[in-house]
Amino acid sequence: METSRLETFADGVFAIAATLLIIDVSVTAPGAELGAALKHAWPQYAAYAVSFLIIGIWWVNHHAHMAVIDRVDRAFLFATIAMLACIAFLPFPTRLVTQHLRDDGVRAAAITYGLTMTAAAICFAFCLLYAASGRRLIAETADQRTVSSLSRSVIPGVSINAVATLVALWSPYTALALFAATAAFYVLGSSLFGRG
Amino acid sequence: METSRLETFADGVFAIAATLLIIDVSVTAPGAELGAALKHAWPQYAAYAVSFLIIGIWWVNHHAHMAVIDRVDRAFLFATIAMLACIAFLPFPTRLVTQHLRDDGVRAAAITYGLTMTAAAICFAFCLLYAASGRRLIAETADQRTVSSLSRSVIPGVSINAVATLVALWSPYTALALFAATAAFYVLGSSLFGRG
Amino acid sequence: METSRLETFADGVFAIAATLLIIDVSVTAPGAELGAALKHAWPQYAAYAVSFLIIGIWWVNHHAHMAVIDRVDRAFLFATIAMLACIAFLPFPTRLVTQHLRDDGVRAAAITYGLTMTAAAICFAFCLLYAASGRRLIAETADQRTVSSLSRSVIPGVSINAVATLVALWSPYTALALFAATAAFYVLGSSLFGRG
Amino acid sequence: METSRLETFADGVFAIAATLLIIDVSVTAPGAELGAALKHAWPQYAAYAVSFLIIGIWWVNHHAHMAVIDRVDRAFLFATIAMLACIAFLPFPTRLVTQHLRDDGVRAAAITYGLTMTAAAICFAFCLLYAASGRRLIAETADQRTVSSLSRSVIPGVSINAVATLVALWSPYTALALFAATAAFYVLGSSLFGRG
Repeated sequence: METSRLETFADGVFAIAATLLIIDVSVTAPGAELGAALKHAWPQYAAYAVSFLIIGIWWVNHHAHMAVIDRVDRAFLFATIAMLACIAFLPFPTRLVTQHLRDDGVRAAAITYGLTMTAAAICFAFCLLYAASGRRLIAETADQRTVSSLSRSVIPGVSINAVATLVALWSPYTALALFAATAAFYVLGSSLFGRG
Repeated sequence: METSRLETFADGVFAIAATLLIIDVSVTAPGAELGAALKHAWPQYAAYAVSFLIIGIWWVNHHAHMAVIDRVDRAFLFATIAMLACIAFLPFPTRLVTQHLRDDGVRAAAITYGLTMTAAAICFAFCLLYAASGRRLIAETADQRTVSSLSRSVIPGVSINAVATLVALWSPYTALALFAATAAFYVLGSSLFGRG
Repeated sequence: METSRLETFADGVFAIAATLLIIDVSVTAPGAELGAALKHAWPQYAAYAVSFLIIGIWWVNHHAHMAVIDRVDRAFLFATIAMLACIAFLPFPTRLVTQHLRDDGVRAAAITYGLTMTAAAICFAFCLLYAASGRRLIAETADQRTVSSLSRSVIPGVSINAVATLVALWSPYTALALFAATAAFYVLGSSLFGRG
Repeated sequence: METSRLETFADGVFAIAATLLIIDVSVTAPGAELGAALKHAWPQYAAYAVSFLIIGIWWVNHHAHMAVIDRVDRAFLFATIAMLACIAFLPFPTRLVTQHLRDDGVRAAAITYGLTMTAAAICFAFCLLYAASGRRLIAETADQRTVSSLSRSVIPGVSINAVATLVALWSPYTALALFAATAAFYVLGSSLFGRG
């Protein structure tokens, strides 16, 4: 299979998963109290924005990695599908977090969010390390330094998400702030210093 | 990243956000009263049509702007993702407007609609002004007059939406009529006088 | 705008509208009665199949028509968006028909279904007649006989749907059978005698 | 119609059907019991993963088959649309299985799942056998051995699903395990021994 077909399918899943997040944004109130209810519901908008941004970052990273790959085999294909299944799962923990942000369920919700992210990061790391091992699926024209740099970058992706998930055991709010801050720093950092 | 990949992703979000609007169109009535209930629910169809059309206009404009751009960097990419997050948010205020069109909540609903549109317009303006500044991301072949004309057109986009949002503070119905009328005039105007 | 971008967007809306139909297929019953409830719910599967097929036929026809067109202007673009808004609306009357197939609401549901189809057919006819008038948007290489044949085929599309909608005023079940039969005959006819 | 357009449409339906599965993953519990409720809900995650994987496998197989086809006619087109309608139907029996995994409804749910899969496999087999008969739609460059091998592979696809559906009459849990195991073995087998 050409990599372009895989990218089209992945683009579809990324776009749909991000856009479906809006289905769970919901505020129900009598007319006279709608204004106050909309203000009170800010965690819903924040969660929508953070999860949309995280899916966007994954989409950007997925393309950066696919740029050095010029063929795929079945193992790579199914590892990518597993990663996409994790990304498409994100609307569920996002909904849990917004529903339980103000009650005791926030810990379980934040852990679910973290486990989903960690699982996606592990699948993603597997994809790249599998492809890069012995340059199995790497394009001839790809610079080895670029490939090495991408390979090195996937391990911190797993670690950061795994650590934030562990943090959620003690302090779910800190963990959620970590997810949001990591996404925001990534966007700022790569916008200011990143490659095109 | 090539601009074509960004356009494919954006096309996906535009198409999904528009098509998801139908999920919120819902009429529940006993069989004998269904006809009357369907007539009474006209604001739902009107809101569906206006929001679908507005998303369609954004899609058309996004392509017109991408036509002069031949490369993207990370800042442009994430500003586009932020704009798409605003567009994909539109089903939520659309739902609020139809649910509260006949009660006191209409003001808060119209303001939410307007803030969403204004935020999208600001992201969109940022994208184009960032790309056009010093022709940072502009294709060599793009005529400077076309670029300048596009750059000038994004500021009224912000202003119109911001003004309509302010109008919603006093008269939500006038604001909603403004959003619908702006979309209708845009379609008529660019169909009669616009470029292909 | 190139026609290929419009086709990509339209493909997205067709695919999403068809796939969203499944959201409304729903059977709720205690475990012991699930089998009977699933059999009783056959109108839901029939409506899903017919609407999915109808959207598929529209997608096929849209491509057949786009094949003779090699440029689009704003009027054509917005007429296409209006047609897509009608197609994306179809899950709503489909849901109404299945919910009210066995009560008095079936008439209003069938009329809503018919009006949606008729509106889509009118937009579609406008698109093609507008493009074909003076060969405004027709590719130089397109055979005039093909264009004329396509132009002639859009008027029956409007008539059939309009007639079925009128029939729904007297006999909603006949009208629904007409929609299903038209789709089935179209598939059989064009499969046996149609062009590739 | 070019095969590339059909593939784009099919890719869209596959991606949307898979991503929509998350809408049905839902856990509602008071905050203090959320952790326990999330653990208790493991069948939902398992069903999500299996159905997502199965849709992914169909997508991979669909591309493998389209690779030997270089033109489509109306019969092939509508048979593909029928297959996509079955795939897009999968979220419904997936939901039934998770809702009734622990009650008497599991038999009816597993049979519905199996019938959906069997119907999809029959449509898929029809597509390939129709295309391969007399090399009706097969690319000139396609090796006859590849075509024969693909043709032979679609019949077991029907058989396995039909047998698993029959098994569900006696033991729904065995049938569900068969669906999951078939998918897992397919992924492992084709990853270890398969072609790229």
